[in-house]
Amino acid sequence: MAAEAVETLDGWYCLHDLRTIDWTSWKYASSEERESAIHEFKNLLTKWEAVENEENGSHVLYKVVGQKADLMFMFLRPTMDELTDIETEFNKSKFAEFLLHAHSYVSVVELSKYGPQHAEDDPRTQERLKPILPKWEHISFYPMNKSRDGEDNWYSVDFKERAKLLYEHSKTGRKYAGNIKQIITGSFGFDDWEWGVTLFAHDPLQLKKIVYEMRFDEVSARFGEFGEFFVGNHLAKDDIDAYLHV
Amino acid sequence: MAAEAVETLDGWYCLHDLRTIDWTSWKYASSEERESAIHEFKNLLTKWEAVENEENGSHVLYKVVGQKADLMFMFLRPTMDELTDIETEFNKSKFAEFLLHAHSYVSVVELSKYGPQHAEDDPRTQERLKPILPKWEHISFYPMNKSRDGEDNWYSVDFKERAKLLYEHSKTGRKYAGNIKQIITGSFGFDDWEWGVTLFAHDPLQLKKIVYEMRFDEVSARFGEFGEFFVGNHLAKDDIDAYLHV
Amino acid sequence: MAAEAVETLDGWYCLHDLRTIDWTSWKYASSEERESAIHEFKNLLTKWEAVENEENGSHVLYKVVGQKADLMFMFLRPTMDELTDIETEFNKSKFAEFLLHAHSYVSVVELSKYGPQHAEDDPRTQERLKPILPKWEHISFYPMNKSRDGEDNWYSVDFKERAKLLYEHSKTGRKYAGNIKQIITGSFGFDDWEWGVTLFAHDPLQLKKIVYEMRFDEVSARFGEFGEFFVGNHLAKDDIDAYLHV
Amino acid sequence: MAAEAVETLDGWYCLHDLRTIDWTSWKYASSEERESAIHEFKNLLTKWEAVENEENGSHVLYKVVGQKADLMFMFLRPTMDELTDIETEFNKSKFAEFLLHAHSYVSVVELSKYGPQHAEDDPRTQERLKPILPKWEHISFYPMNKSRDGEDNWYSVDFKERAKLLYEHSKTGRKYAGNIKQIITGSFGFDDWEWGVTLFAHDPLQLKKIVYEMRFDEVSARFGEFGEFFVGNHLAKDDIDAYLHV
Amino acid sequence: MAAEAVETLDGWYCLHDLRTIDWTSWKYASSEERESAIHEFKNLLTKWEAVENEENGSHVLYKVVGQKADLMFMFLRPTMDELTDIETEFNKSKFAEFLLHAHSYVSVVELSKYGPQHAEDDPRTQERLKPILPKWEHISFYPMNKSRDGEDNWYSVDFKERAKLLYEHSKTGRKYAGNIKQIITGSFGFDDWEWGVTLFAHDPLQLKKIVYEMRFDEVSARFGEFGEFFVGNHLAKDDIDAYLHV
Repeated sequence: MAAEAVETLDGWYCLHDLRTIDWTSWKYASSEERESAIHEFKNLLTKWEAVENEENGSHVLYKVVGQKADLMFMFLRPTMDELTDIETEFNKSKFAEFLLHAHSYVSVVELSKYGPQHAEDDPRTQERLKPILPKWEHISFYPMNKSRDGEDNWYSVDFKERAKLLYEHSKTGRKYAGNIKQIITGSFGFDDWEWGVTLFAHDPLQLKKIVYEMRFDEVSARFGEFGEFFVGNHLAKDDIDAYLHV
Repeated sequence: MAAEAVETLDGWYCLHDLRTIDWTSWKYASSEERESAIHEFKNLLTKWEAVENEENGSHVLYKVVGQKADLMFMFLRPTMDELTDIETEFNKSKFAEFLLHAHSYVSVVELSKYGPQHAEDDPRTQERLKPILPKWEHISFYPMNKSRDGEDNWYSVDFKERAKLLYEHSKTGRKYAGNIKQIITGSFGFDDWEWGVTLFAHDPLQLKKIVYEMRFDEVSARFGEFGEFFVGNHLAKDDIDAYLHV
Repeated sequence: MAAEAVETLDGWYCLHDLRTIDWTSWKYASSEERESAIHEFKNLLTKWEAVENEENGSHVLYKVVGQKADLMFMFLRPTMDELTDIETEFNKSKFAEFLLHAHSYVSVVELSKYGPQHAEDDPRTQERLKPILPKWEHISFYPMNKSRDGEDNWYSVDFKERAKLLYEHSKTGRKYAGNIKQIITGSFGFDDWEWGVTLFAHDPLQLKKIVYEMRFDEVSARFGEFGEFFVGNHLAKDDIDAYLHV
Repeated sequence: MAAEAVETLDGWYCLHDLRTIDWTSWKYASSEERESAIHEFKNLLTKWEAVENEENGSHVLYKVVGQKADLMFMFLRPTMDELTDIETEFNKSKFAEFLLHAHSYVSVVELSKYGPQHAEDDPRTQERLKPILPKWEHISFYPMNKSRDGEDNWYSVDFKERAKLLYEHSKTGRKYAGNIKQIITGSFGFDDWEWGVTLFAHDPLQLKKIVYEMRFDEVSARFGEFGEFFVGNHLAKDDIDAYLHV
Repeated sequence: MAAEAVETLDGWYCLHDLRTIDWTSWKYASSEERESAIHEFKNLLTKWEAVENEENGSHVLYKVVGQKADLMFMFLRPTMDELTDIETEFNKSKFAEFLLHAHSYVSVVELSKYGPQHAEDDPRTQERLKPILPKWEHISFYPMNKSRDGEDNWYSVDFKERAKLLYEHSKTGRKYAGNIKQIITGSFGFDDWEWGVTLFAHDPLQLKKIVYEMRFDEVSARFGEFGEFFVGNHLAKDDIDAYLHV
């Protein structure tokens, strides 16, 4: 009954870090404190931008819609140690004094070798493993598992069948080319679900449409298990002052 | 085994925002603080009313029964950015200093094209996609999924069967015309369930009767998965002073 | 596969409201504050007693055993608005400053028309729909659903079979006449489960025995899904001073 | 499909009460406050010992391993009211100001009449229903249900089969005589699971071995559903000063 | 249907103890307080190192990635009492005033006698039962159960089949020799899952690869149930000053 595991190519490590702003504390801080917190926070962003410019990593910042969080960071780095360093530096910053933990997710950018793949040393493969994240207007992040319930046990399905189901699935994805940019990250051994899915869109409706349409693909209908969804609007560094102004 | 996805028409973005009042802090605030908080809160309501009058969105405010929350806002807006703007402005307001996060839900008004539908440019369709919310006495809000368990996998049922089941279901709904106003919002990619259901009623018993009767429809009996239910009584702007008087 | 919904008769709206006492704050309050809080609380109880004496509603107060809560109120009123009014008035009271939210449940007294029923206008029916709650020594409250899992889908079972199963179930209940007083409330559209069950007993062992014995009835064995259980001992108004004395 | 309920004999009511110590508050209290809190706490223990000496109840105190709690009390009393009285008196004590609620469980000592049982008035039966709890070095407490899933529905299995399965199970238990002392308490109608299991051992490994070995008994393999496990080391009254010394 | 339990060899008791740093309190403490807290913390580490040097136990300290915790300790000791002593001493320390409980897990190092095993008194067996934990760069910790769902009931599978499945599984594990060091601990009767798995790696990708590949083994695909995953980077005593510097 055992099925064959498929190799993966793995790229940059990934941390989704979500925070809730304690607006009341923020308002009761002195304007000097707030200015200093914003100044230091922007310096961190500038530092991370430098890393991105040197193609040693990438990051984005979004405003989460609803009460699950206010801010969502997504960080990519070549090593897991760098993720901890970013977290720790941010936790020690002034701005973090006004933030509460909301959620986090640890994973690594992953490509599965189900179909005919670019070779690992192909520049296009390297770009997919070490992607510079788009700064599109909207983001959706959610974790997922492949089910192992009775007949619907992904890990007992043979390679060819899995490859076929994923190929069908990829055709749905391809319809959204240009409208949706998708990053798949694997989290076996790192976090509570097997994969994280991060979608970027110019139009938030495209986020809904792709998730909805894909649910009818057999691989999702039978095997997809989904966790919490987080949706957000892009927060550019230039808009931080206005966003945090009280 | 894969089934055909059905197109949806999508209208205004939707945020359900529920808050709990910290009555003790509210009572210990000075009467000036409370008056100023109420004044600013009513100004926000007036501003949102202007948006509604211009048919650029809609909103309602209800008092939630029980301890799940005290207040439930439901906001409709043409863009997701406006939802974040409303949230952020409200979070920065004086009144929000006395409120705790209770729950939120992000979705978009949706019509499924299962049956013979009005064309998208038909004014009646546009009214359903961009509805001015009724200010009826009672509200019930809950999220739902369609199940994907073994034999009862909605996303593997063929189009005709799904259309038939939904048509039967709509007949139950039609019995409540005049007594229940229902808004369906889709939340694939936006929040933790697939849909949100918001019901308005003059008589709260109608809320119970429709949910109960619909559970016997095959589409609910076999495929309906339901989350938390929130029930509330309408809070008119003119009643806010009395409600918050301590 | 769809089954026929059965009509219900619905009576008074019902709120179970559970609170935890913050004993440390209570102890550190001045004795004047405590006395004033108790005095106001007893006045509320007196006001609610007047409502009960006029048969416009009913209520009880119990001390919850264990850490789930300290106090459980159960309120019955002709309208849902009155439930909110009670909550709001209580939340604004002095005593509420020393209480934490523990749990709540919103429902409505319900009789199902499965068997030969009293007519709605029969006084005995009205007494069951608008019951004056017993002040017996012990209470047990829990919510429940009827399952919709594969073969065990209550909402797909035909009327006659459901009626037969419930008739068998009622025979178990009747064995406890005099020892157990049971109130069934429906919460479709109001709260997270389909029904609430409130049991009153002179001897707490009877609460255990009836729940245990009923579990073997086919309707419970196959279809019963149960939530949290809360058990309590009656708190008479005259015992409040002693209970809250520190 | 309905199976026959089996009578139970029921003894003393039981409260498991788990608390977490707020060590920081404890350290920042004055040494006079701490001494006074310890003194009052030991007086309570002495009072409960007197109850035990008169065979009107029993209790034990353990230090919980890990972060689920620091202290676990288990109280047995002839009435449920006495459990509330103990809780309330303890909640009003000085020491309780430094404790947080961690968990509780309400149940009653129970013997099921599946096999040939001692008569209810047999002194050995009475000893089992009103047990003086052992003060052995280690404790394990966990709640459990019998499953009602499809084929594995305990409440649809006929009496003889259930009796046979439990008889086989009891043989596993008997191997641990002298090493494990087990108290079964029933909690239908009282708390969220059907039973509580409390195990006492001199060697903590015996706790693991019995739970592991029993899982292979058909009655556990097919029907056992288990909740949270709490494991602790005995805390004698004489060791309290050292344990709480800061 | 009952299957035969397999004996286990059990070694040192194990506590995983995870804490979150309250960075804001830490920053607002005086530098004297922080220095004194770090000094005392390092003394504890030195004391635990002495125990390890005498082969009376072992421990490691890791920085957890993401918001689940900041620090993860794993302690091994010959007795369960020593685990409580470590916890209690640490809880009373200055540094603990700046930490919040995040998670814990109680278990015991375990070897199952499925295959041809070293005899209990073989030094290699003793080394596996009382292991000195590696101080490798990365750790992954997660709990697991063997499922008991319908056909996929581990505890009803006969000995030979279980042994065969585990033997296949061990072959996957052996591929990672040198890259992964694995410690299995049993927690029946001690904590909420049946086993804990702790993996050590030089390269964090190996943690993902082994967990992913093993999921395709029949024993995991059909019977593995997994809880929360915690991943961390090693924190050497010499790096504590820098890590905690604010």
